[in-house]
Amino acid sequence: MSNVLNSENASTLENAMQLMIQTFHKYSGNEGDKYTLSRQELKEMLTQELGNYLGNAQDKDAVDKVMGDLDSNNDGEVDFTEFVILVGALTVACNDFFLEYHEKDEKKAEKKE
Amino acid sequence: MSNVLNSENASTLENAMQLMIQTFHKYSGNEGDKYTLSRQELKEMLTQELGNYLGNAQDKDAVDKVMGDLDSNNDGEVDFTEFVILVGALTVACNDFFLEYHEKDEKKAEKKE
Repeated sequence: MSNVLNSENASTLENAMQLMIQTFHKYSGNEGDKYTLSRQELKEMLTQELGNYLGNAQDKDAVDKVMGDLDSNNDGEVDFTEFVILVGALTVACNDFFLEYHEKDEKKAEKKE
Repeated sequence: MSNVLNSENASTLENAMQLMIQTFHKYSGNEGDKYTLSRQELKEMLTQELGNYLGNAQDKDAVDKVMGDLDSNNDGEVDFTEFVILVGALTVACNDFFLEYHEKDEKKAEKKE
């Protein structure tokens, strides 16, 4: 498993996994528990890492839902598992958007033929 | 949301999300339904993308559990959401391993002081 933590020879998917781990610890270490995100750390992470996404989100409902889910856990700390669930949900929303966009593009191409 | 699909100006976390989407579609398009992984496509993805991980996994139980969970969905196709759940579970296992390793390292450093 140590290779997963070593970016040499890592596959594309292993790189994605490393980037998630790195991102979490970049923010979680700033204050309080080193291994969880406080409200302030979560806010910083969302603003700096997902600013493009949150700023331009067409599918506002999906983002609101994820936010609500995180808020319901009222200890004010987000652990790594909760962070991964958030990123996973956003990635699924992002993929759905990508597929919809791609299908529209294909239909346009068909009409032109 | 379009910026998320455009790697210029993307944050570290957005890059991780893009890499997950890219990886899935790299394998899902090979045969049958373009947007799901068949058993063969899943096997290729696991071998090529998680070979380092599966080959060296110390925490074999975690990997076995994830495999069992995927197998229980017996339609022989893995959709994007199931893929993200797999990657998320592996990333959490990987992070736990990283923290354990890091804590052992810190204890060693304390003993030396």
